Amino acid sequence: MRALTYDGKTAVVADVPRPELAQDSALVRVTVAGVCNTDIELVKGYMAFRGILGHEFVGVVEEGPEEWRGERVVGEINFACESCPICYEGLQRHCPSRRVMGIVDADGSFAEYVNVPISNLHTVPASVADDVAVFAEPLAAAYEVLEQVHVMPNQECLVLGDGKLGLLIAQVLRQAGAHVLVVGHHEKNLEILAQRDIRTVRERDWNPSLYSLVVDATGSVGGLQKALAATRPRGTVVLKSTTATKARLDLSTLVVNEIRVVGSRCGPFPPALRALETGSIDVASLITHRTSLANCDEALRRAGDRGQLKVLVEAQ
Amino acid sequence: MRALTYDGKTAVVADVPRPELAQDSALVRVTVAGVCNTDIELVKGYMAFRGILGHEFVGVVEEGPEEWRGERVVGEINFACESCPICYEGLQRHCPSRRVMGIVDADGSFAEYVNVPISNLHTVPASVADDVAVFAEPLAAAYEVLEQVHVMPNQECLVLGDGKLGLLIAQVLRQAGAHVLVVGHHEKNLEILAQRDIRTVRERDWNPSLYSLVVDATGSVGGLQKALAATRPRGTVVLKSTTATKARLDLSTLVVNEIRVVGSRCGPFPPALRALETGSIDVASLITHRTSLANCDEALRRAGDRGQLKVLVEAQ
Repeated sequence: MRALTYDGKTAVVADVPRPELAQDSALVRVTVAGVCNTDIELVKGYMAFRGILGHEFVGVVEEGPEEWRGERVVGEINFACESCPICYEGLQRHCPSRRVMGIVDADGSFAEYVNVPISNLHTVPASVADDVAVFAEPLAAAYEVLEQVHVMPNQECLVLGDGKLGLLIAQVLRQAGAHVLVVGHHEKNLEILAQRDIRTVRERDWNPSLYSLVVDATGSVGGLQKALAATRPRGTVVLKSTTATKARLDLSTLVVNEIRVVGSRCGPFPPALRALETGSIDVASLITHRTSLANCDEALRRAGDRGQLKVLVEAQ
Repeated sequence: MRALTYDGKTAVVADVPRPELAQDSALVRVTVAGVCNTDIELVKGYMAFRGILGHEFVGVVEEGPEEWRGERVVGEINFACESCPICYEGLQRHCPSRRVMGIVDADGSFAEYVNVPISNLHTVPASVADDVAVFAEPLAAAYEVLEQVHVMPNQECLVLGDGKLGLLIAQVLRQAGAHVLVVGHHEKNLEILAQRDIRTVRERDWNPSLYSLVVDATGSVGGLQKALAATRPRGTVVLKSTTATKARLDLSTLVVNEIRVVGSRCGPFPPALRALETGSIDVASLITHRTSLANCDEALRRAGDRGQLKVLVEAQ
């Protein structure tokens, strides 16, 4: 089959053997996959990943248990052992021996087929198109903020970053009743939010004030420092940015203002799928480029271009 | 009067005018003052402070409202405006226009006399000796951990650092019912804890495992990275270290393990004074050096010496 493989140096589309069905898994024929910023960081060396990239997908189960065959599915990306103390606590996404699709020791979804453990599968409601369903994983990561932090109705929240994840998080916070200001760089991206009752400002025009909740979705190494400076004493910063480079940080703001910084990664799929089904979160506006699996290597390079939002890869 | 002044270059004992009684304040004749690591950082450039150093003290009110005159007192170090939204919320320690004794825009306690706002004063119980009462401020900073984080009885907690603050925090956590392991460098300091039912290990002999609560009291710029590495997924790091230098941090551990980092600074005096009165926290063992105000500059230099714990300055 065709797949986007990364050998530690370059990401190339190659012909690789179609995977065998793995134990307790479904072999999913990928329909559409999405490019995430993490993919861009991975090819810069983050996590030292080798293998088939990609972790956002929608597809159809081709092999596996009978009750799953033919189902249109999305899948959670953390493949947990399900038998350690962390898993027993319900923290499978943190299982210490987990593999992570397209990120840690498991092949990913920029491929015609991908193995996904049965317990990671979620059926896609019939009314949700593939191009929308493929957002389940990043939207779940946005919902993770609500799982970790108590967001109050009418709370004034600040989101730094108008990239893909910033736009999703801002919508999730607004849906939770918060008043949201998004600071970004791209007029077009910010316009998407203006339609959704979310205030926006370009960073160069921004007159910073202090917020009790600030989300760093800049995806950049300097994001945390900016977020700390915009957080009121005893306030909370949710840190979403993972980068391959180290940050040089003045931590005194964190200590002196007694700020709480909460790292945030993958999130719950069910609320994401519900929001995609009801249409309460706009994801269609985020699609800026489509390509085929054959051109996936080029798509990955273009995904980091200025103003680019979600790049979708059609695998079939 | 005699005082330890810092001009941005050197800290010297000098003769300076005795302060006039300030509005809504008491003029306190300092009996004993304590050297804090923050003092050492201040003379390295932290906070760009200029003036009389020192913020830990016990003394007697000499001028001020009649009901306070002659009272033996300790004092909170954050001088708040008491009239802004943050103050109205009860967060006076975070008042944006606060001055901080010996740290921000207010003269400190390495002096014969110091002005302290009335609302910052606490009467010292008669049974508490001056050498014990002078620990009210740092012990309050240790209690701050309990104000910010829910510490459960039997919770396994890790404290990094066997300096002054580490020893106080470890005792406060133990008193709250937690099981505490302190990782340090100094046999003598760790022995103080062994007497208080607290496990200790020297860093070179430490076989790190993961804790749900880790307190960084190393006072060093690399402390947070070590703390993150010792924190379990979704666990909490309390960050106590403030340093004059920037930290170079790999934040991916924070994000991937969804760790919560809580900056922690000054704390509540009442529980600290109660603990000093009942003797439930041992502070006397922490005194390793005493000197007079005349030798305070040398005391400040010695306070950073290896193995040194609390250095007390007798002002009278």
